[in-house]
Amino acid sequence: MGHDAVTDRQRKLAPGDILGILGGGQLGRMIALAAARLGLRTHIYCPDPASPAFDVTPNRTIAAYDDASALAAFADAVDAVTFEFENVPARTAEILEACTVLRPNARALAVSQDRLLEKTFFRDRAIPTAPYAAVDDEQSLAEALRMIGTPSILKTRTLGYDGKGQRRLDDAGDASQAWSELAGAPAILEGFVPFAREVSLVMARGLDGDIAFYDMAENRHENHILRQSLVPAALPDATVAEAREIGRRTLTDLDYVGVLAVELFVVERGAACDLVVNEIAPRVHNSGHWTEAVCPVSQFEQHVRAVCGWPLGSTSSQHDVDMRNLLGTEAETWQTLAREPGTVMHLYGKAEARPGRKMGHITRILGPRSS
Amino acid sequence: MGHDAVTDRQRKLAPGDILGILGGGQLGRMIALAAARLGLRTHIYCPDPASPAFDVTPNRTIAAYDDASALAAFADAVDAVTFEFENVPARTAEILEACTVLRPNARALAVSQDRLLEKTFFRDRAIPTAPYAAVDDEQSLAEALRMIGTPSILKTRTLGYDGKGQRRLDDAGDASQAWSELAGAPAILEGFVPFAREVSLVMARGLDGDIAFYDMAENRHENHILRQSLVPAALPDATVAEAREIGRRTLTDLDYVGVLAVELFVVERGAACDLVVNEIAPRVHNSGHWTEAVCPVSQFEQHVRAVCGWPLGSTSSQHDVDMRNLLGTEAETWQTLAREPGTVMHLYGKAEARPGRKMGHITRILGPRSS
Repeated sequence: MGHDAVTDRQRKLAPGDILGILGGGQLGRMIALAAARLGLRTHIYCPDPASPAFDVTPNRTIAAYDDASALAAFADAVDAVTFEFENVPARTAEILEACTVLRPNARALAVSQDRLLEKTFFRDRAIPTAPYAAVDDEQSLAEALRMIGTPSILKTRTLGYDGKGQRRLDDAGDASQAWSELAGAPAILEGFVPFAREVSLVMARGLDGDIAFYDMAENRHENHILRQSLVPAALPDATVAEAREIGRRTLTDLDYVGVLAVELFVVERGAACDLVVNEIAPRVHNSGHWTEAVCPVSQFEQHVRAVCGWPLGSTSSQHDVDMRNLLGTEAETWQTLAREPGTVMHLYGKAEARPGRKMGHITRILGPRSS
Repeated sequence: MGHDAVTDRQRKLAPGDILGILGGGQLGRMIALAAARLGLRTHIYCPDPASPAFDVTPNRTIAAYDDASALAAFADAVDAVTFEFENVPARTAEILEACTVLRPNARALAVSQDRLLEKTFFRDRAIPTAPYAAVDDEQSLAEALRMIGTPSILKTRTLGYDGKGQRRLDDAGDASQAWSELAGAPAILEGFVPFAREVSLVMARGLDGDIAFYDMAENRHENHILRQSLVPAALPDATVAEAREIGRRTLTDLDYVGVLAVELFVVERGAACDLVVNEIAPRVHNSGHWTEAVCPVSQFEQHVRAVCGWPLGSTSSQHDVDMRNLLGTEAETWQTLAREPGTVMHLYGKAEARPGRKMGHITRILGPRSS
């Protein structure tokens, strides 16, 4: 639809308008369902014809993310574009920003999809991260190892998720093999953080600059995949305030519009806690799925509100909750889970239950907030 | 898909299966959104190409409800069929029941779409209704008037909703004109019930015979259109128990599967209340829209669970709520409503805001349950 850089910056969508979504997985699907509840139409763009998000809208584009003419036609068919994953190629974002509104913006994508830029973003703001050094070849890996030591983790700068593109180094002697396994991709070496727990903060910033925070989640992973989120995370008020300040600076400095998650390590220091940023995700986040069960406005609706230029909504919750992912064949227990009182079930409609694949999630409402 | 009357009676759908929905209005749309959250696919059948439910699924049939070949193809493309409105023609239900699973069943449709059958269903069970008599011509109208008196309401037996097909008689002299205005359609004359309030009970029965009740709503109408539902209705426990017993008998005696609403008049008798059945709706109901805001399982998901043969889910709520319909241009206040804390907004994506048209609804969460 029409493009005018001056007015686009403030473009607001109205009910009936079409929100374009890059990515057809469960996150795109849940964004589309939330948009529908606000009277918005959606259009899903995804290369995979079997995308679960295609089942919840009549408007789809099946094309590669680097297909410039498909992207242009998509941009023309929608009123704004958002995405469900941070690995949107820079060129894709550029094409879309040239002819429609892309929210969150390309800078947020660039920072969050490259571990070196991401860590540097936080170091520049004196926000604690794991110790790290850039690795571009075996020589810089050796230097990084001298600086960071072992145990440490060699990670590709881009395209890693759920533990992919990572090699643990327990000894400097592991370096050469790890480097060759990553096939020469630009990388960083990260030092280990002696964390007691992993937590996350899901929040949103509106087009008007308003910011809203959800309760923080404590997250448990298995094989690098999120298994469970307990909400609210047991954290001192001062630590929550510190996390929110980190979140607020991130959102503001990126001129961010939409939902963003910050994953943090909690390092215990006596009765106090130190926070160390692990990474950010410029999108709705698995550790925020519980919001649909107990918040007036879920993270999915909040994201839609933000990227459409609507006011942000209520994030308050009065319940303790326990969200668990249903991985692989676990989703086959749906008949049992459906019988549980106080459990909200969400299945993604994926045809094939591959091991570790996220097939759905449940949120158990544990009772009124204890604290 | 395959049809076998013996096994169909117990047919259960699994995630990935397709639920067919007759009717493409907001109720069909909300049923489809709830089905999507359970991993089910949907297929909407509606004659109107501008149906709002078409925006939330890729599978649609645009055809008349009496198009036998379109119905057969639809039945063949889905695993079960449900509906969003009670005026499904008997012949349509018959065609569908002959080649797939129709839930709720054709008998529930027949009883609820004909005011005479409906009233008789309750009279046969000694459940109070308004006094009534069948009217087939001017002579039977005169007899009915002698029996029922005035004021009374002449209503067509079928196809009336939101006040359509009704004429109030304040005097026997109004009879002839009222009868001619209804154009000779079979009718009933209903006596006035001196009710203090209107309430409704939304509930569900599963394929296994389980029954689940939501909190009762007190409903306010304007121009015969639902304006507001306050939940829970202020009713003595004994009255709620009586309503549930009426509901239980209705569900059981109709061998009903799905969500059903009973609308009741409350007649005050000192400190006690008498209940009089107004009508039933064999479907999700406007006075149950609040359930999406505060219940683990909304009426829409509950209906999907029931008609798919799944276990019923939690209907509990710990909040007082106030649901209001957004009629006509009221939906244009969405920007203001979106800012209200503790308000859950739902817009239907309808293009044209005709006066009195249901464009959306909001549920205000008033706070923890007071009683």
